[in-house]
Amino acid sequence: MTHTIPGPIDPPARLLMGPGPISAYPSVLRAMSAPLVGQYDPFMTAAMTETQELYRAVWATQSDATLLIDGTSRAGIEAAMLSLIRPGDRVLVPVFGRFGHLLAEIAERAMAEVHTIETAWGQVFAPSAIEEAIIRVRPTLLALVQGDTSTTMNQPLDEIGAICERHGVLFYTDATASLGGNPFEADAWGVDAATAGLQKCLGGPSGSAPITLSPRAVELIQNRKKVEAGIREAGDPSSPDFVRSNYFDLGMILDYWGPRRLNHHTEATTMLYGARECARVLLLEGRDEVIARHELAGRAMLEGVRALGLTVFGDVAHKMHNVVAVEIPEGVPGDVARGALLEDFGIEIGTSFGPLHGKVWRIGTMGYNARKDAVLTTLAALEQVLRRFGAPVPAGGGVEAAVDVYAGAAAGAR
Amino acid sequence: MTHTIPGPIDPPARLLMGPGPISAYPSVLRAMSAPLVGQYDPFMTAAMTETQELYRAVWATQSDATLLIDGTSRAGIEAAMLSLIRPGDRVLVPVFGRFGHLLAEIAERAMAEVHTIETAWGQVFAPSAIEEAIIRVRPTLLALVQGDTSTTMNQPLDEIGAICERHGVLFYTDATASLGGNPFEADAWGVDAATAGLQKCLGGPSGSAPITLSPRAVELIQNRKKVEAGIREAGDPSSPDFVRSNYFDLGMILDYWGPRRLNHHTEATTMLYGARECARVLLLEGRDEVIARHELAGRAMLEGVRALGLTVFGDVAHKMHNVVAVEIPEGVPGDVARGALLEDFGIEIGTSFGPLHGKVWRIGTMGYNARKDAVLTTLAALEQVLRRFGAPVPAGGGVEAAVDVYAGAAAGAR
Repeated sequence: MTHTIPGPIDPPARLLMGPGPISAYPSVLRAMSAPLVGQYDPFMTAAMTETQELYRAVWATQSDATLLIDGTSRAGIEAAMLSLIRPGDRVLVPVFGRFGHLLAEIAERAMAEVHTIETAWGQVFAPSAIEEAIIRVRPTLLALVQGDTSTTMNQPLDEIGAICERHGVLFYTDATASLGGNPFEADAWGVDAATAGLQKCLGGPSGSAPITLSPRAVELIQNRKKVEAGIREAGDPSSPDFVRSNYFDLGMILDYWGPRRLNHHTEATTMLYGARECARVLLLEGRDEVIARHELAGRAMLEGVRALGLTVFGDVAHKMHNVVAVEIPEGVPGDVARGALLEDFGIEIGTSFGPLHGKVWRIGTMGYNARKDAVLTTLAALEQVLRRFGAPVPAGGGVEAAVDVYAGAAAGAR
Repeated sequence: MTHTIPGPIDPPARLLMGPGPISAYPSVLRAMSAPLVGQYDPFMTAAMTETQELYRAVWATQSDATLLIDGTSRAGIEAAMLSLIRPGDRVLVPVFGRFGHLLAEIAERAMAEVHTIETAWGQVFAPSAIEEAIIRVRPTLLALVQGDTSTTMNQPLDEIGAICERHGVLFYTDATASLGGNPFEADAWGVDAATAGLQKCLGGPSGSAPITLSPRAVELIQNRKKVEAGIREAGDPSSPDFVRSNYFDLGMILDYWGPRRLNHHTEATTMLYGARECARVLLLEGRDEVIARHELAGRAMLEGVRALGLTVFGDVAHKMHNVVAVEIPEGVPGDVARGALLEDFGIEIGTSFGPLHGKVWRIGTMGYNARKDAVLTTLAALEQVLRRFGAPVPAGGGVEAAVDVYAGAAAGAR
């Protein structure tokens, strides 16, 4: 077989200002070139334990059951849902964007009886609307996205745990897009399960999914595990309680990360190093400080795009800090203009899915790129590209507006 | 919340000579610190396409359906099995070690009717025994491990595809431990699905699972995808043909890696860079040359441990090139001696599972560490440790025997 062998990987310079993945923290990339150690090397198990402790601080939880799933953020979602949903369980999914549809789809795969409520893209749910649906549906699990990048919305969660508690419902949330850049309080909010990915506000590559589980969720999972063992002894794999996956069976994964260290998969060492470093840089800067940095960068970008004459999509009061959606101006060819931004300036912004496809761009300010220079550079380049494609843009207006936001914040801090 | 924030990751020096993970190629670690790009950046999609082409050469296949699963090698196994097994399907798993049991376990999770045949640990199956079982069980799928690190055995596969073809059975093999260090011919052997991991002979970290599928396997998967869409329209998720996972639904993953580039997960960029580099270094050296290097290092280690007076476990004629199991000498405390090797020499060798636990050590020579200096250093240190714990070992005997193997090979090559 003849084949041309390409050279070493050599990515072009990119400032990733889309809805994620975004440019990783340099120290995260460095961590990922560290040498490997064995799976049960004392250094490795200590690094796993350290990583759990770091993520407890990121999630704001005391739960031992805080660890990583080896896969992308979607792997974390599926691990949570397959392990928490027994076939036939009723699951309620409030859908306010693409990722709500994904949760419903994964719940279907888990053989749940899936009920959805929907709100228009660009809106979030009032807690009362969720409670009404819970009373009507009587689900065993509420599966609710926190931040949905497809619409930029950030669903308020602080009252949801209490509602779920009141009605005996488990509460799972997908915080992939929001964690690290927006408030998250796993214990205070009564979250039973939450998952994320590294490639958004945590500033790492896709491929590892932080997860945390409440004692109540762990109890359910451990009960299924016992039942499963019994089933297997009886040679009957068709019980409704059977977790339909080995890879995502959180009971086994908890035993691997727990003191028993029972072998399951071989932990993805390099992804662990990266995930550890994502949490480490976040906590070194300070959890609240990182959220504030995202709030500030997001506000500067918001005022910047507005000052460029762009219309912001959705309910801005409930926008995530780390991403903004803007309507593509009349007459501007959306994908061509995005291509020019990438080709001429090395800057990536995002397209959109579903009902927003071709109508809005999504611009992210997250993780490492929630920075003043990244915001200003993006606005300066965007101004040039908009002008090139005939949109009326005030010279320097976007950058000035963003500079003013930063100046105001600096003055406020003095 | 107060917490101590640890320093940057700083692994100790380790020569990983166990059954995997092993020390990665330095260039693989370097590739994994390369900057990220966007998910649909032309560079990213080109890197995905390049990686597919590289792995076609590694697997020796022409199949378009050659790609990566984002997860550990177990994720690749589960993607193959969940996508190929319809609930109620009969699956035959010949078990000759721990990973055969894993295939049976995953087939159970996929709701298959699982049939196993077993042989003693340390042996492989004659093709005729597999054919007899196929005739008796009439499975839709044969799931067969190629190299099982738990026993070091390498199951001959070259006749299995023809047997499966004769009886209309799909043929899946788990080549996690063997690929790259032992012959593998996906097309010539009639393999319908094969999966691997990076952390063995491919010389990378765990966390990405190369997979290849034959046109016949792809057809089955695409048919299930069509049925699934229909099911979802009818609101009935309980059809027997439903893939019980979104993350591992190869129909969707094929659409993401294929020309349509339909969004599924966000590809784990850094793991892709690593996987690409693993294949690249292998093909630069030459596929046959890398297998020959593993054969030579494995033979040198085999003769070395024999010359140290150790008894080799299992049917040596069917041993994988890249790992050898040796009986722990009478009176030597296995785990303490392994600990001394790690602590004093920074060298890791492996313990064992199941019936071999506490009875044998497993010593690997794979990927980057299938090298003369790694073999000799390990033998030199092992000699010291064995002596320390009272085993009668000839001074220098193990190293000499290995040097002789290398010298013989060099003389033969002249």
